Amino acid sequence: MTADTRPKAVDLTHHLSLLARSRVPSPLKDIIRFMEVKGIISFAGGLPTPDFFPMHSLSASVYPANTVLDPENPSPPAESVEISIPRNAPAPAYDIVRGLQYVGGRGLTELETPLRELTEKLWPPAYSDWDVLLNNGSTDGWIKILTLLIESGDHIICDSQIYPSAQAGFVPMGVKSFPIPSDSEGMCPEALAKGLAEWDESRGRRPRVMYSVPVGQNPLGTTMGALRRKAIYDVCVKYDVIIIEDDPYCMLQFPAYVVGQQSTPPAAKADIDDFLSHMSSSFLTIDTQGRVIRMDTFSKTLFPGARLGWFTCNAMFTERLVRGTEVQTQGPSAFSEIITGELLNKWGVDGFIEWNVNLCEQYRVRRDWMLDALAEAFDLVPAEQAGVPGAIGLVAFPKGKGGPAILSFVPPIGGMFIWCKAHYNTHAAWAGFEADKPDQERVRAFEEKFWIRLVEALVLVTPGWYFTPWEGGSHSLHEEGSGNFRLAYSFEPKHNVDEGIRRMADLMTKEWTGEVDISGKL
Amino acid sequence: MTADTRPKAVDLTHHLSLLARSRVPSPLKDIIRFMEVKGIISFAGGLPTPDFFPMHSLSASVYPANTVLDPENPSPPAESVEISIPRNAPAPAYDIVRGLQYVGGRGLTELETPLRELTEKLWPPAYSDWDVLLNNGSTDGWIKILTLLIESGDHIICDSQIYPSAQAGFVPMGVKSFPIPSDSEGMCPEALAKGLAEWDESRGRRPRVMYSVPVGQNPLGTTMGALRRKAIYDVCVKYDVIIIEDDPYCMLQFPAYVVGQQSTPPAAKADIDDFLSHMSSSFLTIDTQGRVIRMDTFSKTLFPGARLGWFTCNAMFTERLVRGTEVQTQGPSAFSEIITGELLNKWGVDGFIEWNVNLCEQYRVRRDWMLDALAEAFDLVPAEQAGVPGAIGLVAFPKGKGGPAILSFVPPIGGMFIWCKAHYNTHAAWAGFEADKPDQERVRAFEEKFWIRLVEALVLVTPGWYFTPWEGGSHSLHEEGSGNFRLAYSFEPKHNVDEGIRRMADLMTKEWTGEVDISGKL
Repeated sequence: MTADTRPKAVDLTHHLSLLARSRVPSPLKDIIRFMEVKGIISFAGGLPTPDFFPMHSLSASVYPANTVLDPENPSPPAESVEISIPRNAPAPAYDIVRGLQYVGGRGLTELETPLRELTEKLWPPAYSDWDVLLNNGSTDGWIKILTLLIESGDHIICDSQIYPSAQAGFVPMGVKSFPIPSDSEGMCPEALAKGLAEWDESRGRRPRVMYSVPVGQNPLGTTMGALRRKAIYDVCVKYDVIIIEDDPYCMLQFPAYVVGQQSTPPAAKADIDDFLSHMSSSFLTIDTQGRVIRMDTFSKTLFPGARLGWFTCNAMFTERLVRGTEVQTQGPSAFSEIITGELLNKWGVDGFIEWNVNLCEQYRVRRDWMLDALAEAFDLVPAEQAGVPGAIGLVAFPKGKGGPAILSFVPPIGGMFIWCKAHYNTHAAWAGFEADKPDQERVRAFEEKFWIRLVEALVLVTPGWYFTPWEGGSHSLHEEGSGNFRLAYSFEPKHNVDEGIRRMADLMTKEWTGEVDISGKL
Repeated sequence: MTADTRPKAVDLTHHLSLLARSRVPSPLKDIIRFMEVKGIISFAGGLPTPDFFPMHSLSASVYPANTVLDPENPSPPAESVEISIPRNAPAPAYDIVRGLQYVGGRGLTELETPLRELTEKLWPPAYSDWDVLLNNGSTDGWIKILTLLIESGDHIICDSQIYPSAQAGFVPMGVKSFPIPSDSEGMCPEALAKGLAEWDESRGRRPRVMYSVPVGQNPLGTTMGALRRKAIYDVCVKYDVIIIEDDPYCMLQFPAYVVGQQSTPPAAKADIDDFLSHMSSSFLTIDTQGRVIRMDTFSKTLFPGARLGWFTCNAMFTERLVRGTEVQTQGPSAFSEIITGELLNKWGVDGFIEWNVNLCEQYRVRRDWMLDALAEAFDLVPAEQAGVPGAIGLVAFPKGKGGPAILSFVPPIGGMFIWCKAHYNTHAAWAGFEADKPDQERVRAFEEKFWIRLVEALVLVTPGWYFTPWEGGSHSLHEEGSGNFRLAYSFEPKHNVDEGIRRMADLMTKEWTGEVDISGKL
């Protein structure tokens, strides 16, 4: 074993909230070390006896790690890998007796071993004293981070659009969003630096926590490249900002989409080296100071219902997060831990990566379905050729007959979503619609009615206003005359993707060109 | 179906915290109802497709509900009940595809059906609009309740001793305990009424939340009878107090222990009717107003590791708890839910009760082991005969040779613990020990050293000071010249219980009577 030459994390304890500083270790900790005294008889722990856990064994039949499904007919594979968890078993196998007993706030720590291995393989931190800590999925992880770092009155740095549940966690705490403009790669470092440099202290202390979803951002669908990450990280060092890297879509990274190029079926065999060589990895790999708290989850890669995820960060932060976990949740569900743990034991860490590279191909094909359907239903023109104000990526025009720019979007190279800008100010009915209102209100009123007409056309999208960062007043990053909506390509089968996009394009084309009269619906 | 003649809950919304009032429903809620429009194609939800959940099936082999083990040799029973969870199954069976997908904050609501049935059988609420809501076990439940009801600066009413993890949840929030004296049945209603009537407003607003463990209180081991519950409830109505009933040991209720009566083995067949007719049920059964929030857990009855429990309370509170759950944890682990849910499907609610009545017998026998060992090692005299100041229950004297009162304790009729009062002021070395110190400090110093000597004698107990309510200053309920420790009889096998109590009694007898010189260890 070679010496770890990476630096140690810098001291970041000044970022801890008053609540996080106030937590003390459980007094029972003192006792636990005496339980290991040779020959001692303990009446100290209030543990139930596992003799009465009413389970002989638990088993599961899972897919092989090299499974490749047919996306259009994704029946379960004929092959299976069998998992069996008995009442007693030597480590590293999991068992009922030890696995289902009370454990400490860290949960079943044997599960940390494959997570550490995965970390060093996929996104080795640039400092040495990092740690991993299990949590109950990223909803739980995020609220624990808020409790760790945030006080009422704070602002949180976020992308120009934010995942609503992340925001719903902090707004009731008296905390606001501080959104930074994005481009096709996500948050703009120049805008971040400017926003922090020009921070108005009358709004509260300068923001010191950033919420970032660097791959397949929800809802923007943007993915940061390596240079972008470095530029953002450098600004965060300069202004002493802690980066929360929420990265559920990290393994769903696709090649760029090329309009008109026929989509290919999933690769028959995962090309792991190729995937890893192209992947945007993690802020951890450039984090020499220990100021990144990374959140991973098994929700997108295995099962959302497992409610199992983990932090990777500075051991100073995990120590405080463990103190929080002891009183907030205790460790995760042991059923989730032992099933996931045995699956990782069977597949191995390399098998888990292989599964993910195959899974990525499945979602790549689904992305292509939707982009192909959009290319079929609209004329897609690169924004730099189309010359439409405020458009980035591809601009959608009525198919084959010219006319106004209807939509624009960046074809995603990661995640599950396409973020569409609707150019309402080129809509046939826009000019006559509530022109006396301030533009933000006017757009909101117009798009709420448009959304209902989409529903009537039997296609459901997520309205853009769900993702608007809450700044305590009007939205500072509103773009005049346009609104947004989010399309998810993760769930519907191909025939529905084709039909749904057709319905949407048909409605929009007719409305934008004035082919239908919607005056009764405004 | 007959009409529900129970009253509706009264309006208790003024108890909600600012944080709980500030939560808004998830905006995605609006969309979910449109997903059910006939023929609609949805690109709205960001769900992963369950085609890629890599599991064919999950199965478990569990014990039959009527299992009775030999406590001295508790090997798994020969019989088993098989649980199998496939990829698709009609309700009320659980399945992989639906079960492991994202669900709302309520978790898998089919699991509420047996919990409602259990509630109506065991502790039917005295009002009609009650609700149940799953949580991730009572640690999670308690922190969610604190978030629901408590502001920084508040005091929480509790027993004279409190479970440390419950207190560790609220102390860092700037919240203090307000302990009420207890007797052999737990909290004294007269003392509660006096404490509230004489509340000094300079300490903050009058306490309005009570944390109560009415059965097998941890650490006191006390269980409330029906009259005691009613008296406490009435005081809480008078002073508008919300009762948090944390009842993990509700199914572990035993007949009174009789010194000198030979302990019997577990009953070969559960006498459910007899158990139910004697059980202390729940504050819910007398709660005509909806001011009780009951917490149940599967941790003591099935598996601690499942991290699965539930609230039963006023639907106004569950609605706010769901809003909290959406951003705090989401629903519990689906693996915990589907395994527990299928177990309940197989056993039935009656089978679950039968399992618990049998389980209760197992712990009753374990209680008897420890009490028998204490009766073997000490002379036990009823406190009313012994005339020892501050002693309740049984007083332990040196075996067969007279001498000082060493210990006193109430033989528990529920739970897993015996709470022992150590009468340090009758210890041979007490008089000469730091007599110039205030009594609280003196006791603490004395008992810390005593605890170490117990460890050296290879017996570990939980020190009483772990359970001291934190009042922000010295402990108001300190009893002069005495300390406490907690003995758990839930875990160690019989030969260890016998040997451990022998070691403890031997050490204590020699110390209290002055047979050993401990001056070098003080």
